[in-house]
Amino acid sequence: MSTVTVPRHHAEDTAPVTVGRRERKKQATRAALSRAAVRLSLEHGVENVTVEQIADAADVSLRTFFNYFSSKEEAVVAGDAARGEMLVDELTARPAAESPLTALQAAVHAFVDDLVSGERREALQMMRRSTALLPHQLAAYAATEQALAVAIAERVGEEVPDAGLDDDGAERPVGLYPALVAAVVMAGVRVAVQRWSDGGSRDLTALHEVVGEVFEHLGALRAREQ
Amino acid sequence: MSTVTVPRHHAEDTAPVTVGRRERKKQATRAALSRAAVRLSLEHGVENVTVEQIADAADVSLRTFFNYFSSKEEAVVAGDAARGEMLVDELTARPAAESPLTALQAAVHAFVDDLVSGERREALQMMRRSTALLPHQLAAYAATEQALAVAIAERVGEEVPDAGLDDDGAERPVGLYPALVAAVVMAGVRVAVQRWSDGGSRDLTALHEVVGEVFEHLGALRAREQ
Repeated sequence: MSTVTVPRHHAEDTAPVTVGRRERKKQATRAALSRAAVRLSLEHGVENVTVEQIADAADVSLRTFFNYFSSKEEAVVAGDAARGEMLVDELTARPAAESPLTALQAAVHAFVDDLVSGERREALQMMRRSTALLPHQLAAYAATEQALAVAIAERVGEEVPDAGLDDDGAERPVGLYPALVAAVVMAGVRVAVQRWSDGGSRDLTALHEVVGEVFEHLGALRAREQ
Repeated sequence: MSTVTVPRHHAEDTAPVTVGRRERKKQATRAALSRAAVRLSLEHGVENVTVEQIADAADVSLRTFFNYFSSKEEAVVAGDAARGEMLVDELTARPAAESPLTALQAAVHAFVDDLVSGERREALQMMRRSTALLPHQLAAYAATEQALAVAIAERVGEEVPDAGLDDDGAERPVGLYPALVAAVVMAGVRVAVQRWSDGGSRDLTALHEVVGEVFEHLGALRAREQ
């Protein structure tokens, strides 16, 4: 599920170098808009922020804003999507010899550090309180889970149909196992972060301990008898 | 997280029989309103249905509607909450000797049958398409997960602080393991139902097979090596 609505020009897309530069510029604009949306929402509350203010703060036109996002809410949660991509990149970078759960645990440790750091932590709490942001967060969450499932499928040697050039992360069918592991690990991260956050701790070592416990339990769900 | 906003009268609450009768009547009204909300939304689309129409269809006043739900969307997803309670009841009814995963698998089989049957299946598809319903679905999902976590905690012998008389399922703190298993099983159910639904099957045996596979994988997450 993609949030990018930039029109595509096929002729240009055939030259990889050009695409690379254009893509980087687009990503920078996108990130600037998202940062401005989060900062303004933290200051004034998302309901009091306008798209105009966000575009102004990122020094782009209103028209440009709408090339990237269809609403201010989408801009606010764009960080979630970017962080999801980071998680997938971390997983892909793990040694191929590692089992999915081992590789995922390592990737998640890096991911949660970013998730709970500084302003992002405040942003996370704001998002948890805002009903307007929920559908957008859910879409970002679903996109991350889907991308994670693809990465897990590739790790376990599944053939995953390639996404076309025009395919901005649209659904690529994977087997039940990768889809399940992606969903389970996302659920585990949510439980770990929420538990750590509810406890009022700001200590990253404590967060990593909770994540470690979560993965320990995940690896032994059947073992637990009364 | 409760959706019931009926005012409470403490003096009356001390007489259990009265409470039981009042509670049953309230539940019947609540169910009638929710059924009307789903039926009207299926016919006309949730965005075209008014709270007045729902109240009329259930033969109650507008004021009564708002004693039960704060919006039409909340009424539409009330079935999710009720179904979540059913899942918890099924789990609680399983023999105490069963391990959490075994008991959960049996409870989930009964739960998914109800989830995908007839009109509920259509309602589910409608809900998946409607952005306005998402936050409400999420709240129902969170309430189910929390209630499930409490039931799992009790099954593994954890002492869970009792909810007060006035406490309509508010958060009761449980250990990490029950919270995680509840989240993981909910994620597993979601993956199983979505996979089965995407496949276009209407065969319940096929659904149960997917659920069985999901639990098999859950019980052996660590075992999977490349």
